[in-house]
Amino acid sequence: MKIDACFSPYLYPIYQGDDTVVVIIDVLRATSAICTAFEHGVEKIIPVATMEEAKAYKEKGFLVGAERNGLPVEGFDFGNSPYHYMGEHVKGKTIVLTTTNGTQAIEAAKDAYKVVIGSFLNISALCDWLINENKDVLLLCSGWKNKFNLEDAVFAGAVTDEISNRTDKFNLGDGCLALKYLYKMAKENPNKFLTHSSHKERLAALNLKADVKYCLTPDKTKIIPIYKDGALVKM
Amino acid sequence: MKIDACFSPYLYPIYQGDDTVVVIIDVLRATSAICTAFEHGVEKIIPVATMEEAKAYKEKGFLVGAERNGLPVEGFDFGNSPYHYMGEHVKGKTIVLTTTNGTQAIEAAKDAYKVVIGSFLNISALCDWLINENKDVLLLCSGWKNKFNLEDAVFAGAVTDEISNRTDKFNLGDGCLALKYLYKMAKENPNKFLTHSSHKERLAALNLKADVKYCLTPDKTKIIPIYKDGALVKM
Repeated sequence: MKIDACFSPYLYPIYQGDDTVVVIIDVLRATSAICTAFEHGVEKIIPVATMEEAKAYKEKGFLVGAERNGLPVEGFDFGNSPYHYMGEHVKGKTIVLTTTNGTQAIEAAKDAYKVVIGSFLNISALCDWLINENKDVLLLCSGWKNKFNLEDAVFAGAVTDEISNRTDKFNLGDGCLALKYLYKMAKENPNKFLTHSSHKERLAALNLKADVKYCLTPDKTKIIPIYKDGALVKM
Repeated sequence: MKIDACFSPYLYPIYQGDDTVVVIIDVLRATSAICTAFEHGVEKIIPVATMEEAKAYKEKGFLVGAERNGLPVEGFDFGNSPYHYMGEHVKGKTIVLTTTNGTQAIEAAKDAYKVVIGSFLNISALCDWLINENKDVLLLCSGWKNKFNLEDAVFAGAVTDEISNRTDKFNLGDGCLALKYLYKMAKENPNKFLTHSSHKERLAALNLKADVKYCLTPDKTKIIPIYKDGALVKM
């Protein structure tokens, strides 16, 4: 079996393979928000790529989260901060979500064998499951507007490191080889390591340091969200 | 000014910018062979993306180098080993070249403000020139069939490291930030570092270890090949 990393949803057609588990990664903040929502009892998340789809759902009365360029979009119920998805108001609910990057990655990979959501918040559960699943793995980094970003790469490196330390049944693609080295440099203090990343600077400018800190916290949940019939649900 | 890295010719449309110098990188082996050819007196190299174009030039009587999947293509004059481009037989000649990855990257970026060829063989001359040029820089890694590869990433990291150690006038994109860290791990012994890279394994299987060693040697030439009017020439 092999594990590789793809650094942009735009590159997904180059990396896609049959019978491959795709892990969607957008740690700052979409996939962290999604993991948080399920931990707080959300029943279903319908990811949509465009604002038009999000508006159509809003008009039908759905709860809708919408973020573009790091900011919540006016007229919707939530942005993509994990803090928006905590509490009684989300419990048992179906939520529609569109974000700058993460939901685009889900859209790109939606026809894969299995599509799951990864973040530091569920990293151990995710790695356990990937090891037991016995399939090729593709770590699909959402990046920023189809460009490589550092935080998704660091998380993909953390997954590679964890999995390859525990089993040698995965052959590491060049992307994962590079990320494993990258993670060695980052793991002591991921928050500090990411200081100069473009998106962390973007979020700091938006006064979202608490979000960043939360999103980099490992193992807040054992839930692995999985894409089924057009929506994310608890596995 | 900014410097960033693009890990696949397929991603070039996402990264392209006005007034940007694009450095084409395919260290194992196309861009190393090109640097070697100019050092040995080649006058002009016409890069072509397809075998059809290469055949058409061959029929017109041109010297043609053609490589696919690491091997020279039968019926042509050279493959893409740097050793094929040394000696009197290339001096003063115009050579047509098509390779699996490198010439595809040139094709992708051919309309950029300036397109130059980078390899360990001309790294110091290249960095000097990039610093003096005072333009945005995009390090375009050719990769392997549009996937990320480790050796081009390590070279792009070496360029980032050299430039950012000498001047702070470039803002580092996330790709370059990651590569700078990667190069820190690789620089002690790039050959050993690349041991597990997919393409190095591919070349070792083809018995091309001497090629790899040569391609990783810094500063064999001061020539920077540049793309002008459909061909590469000495700057």
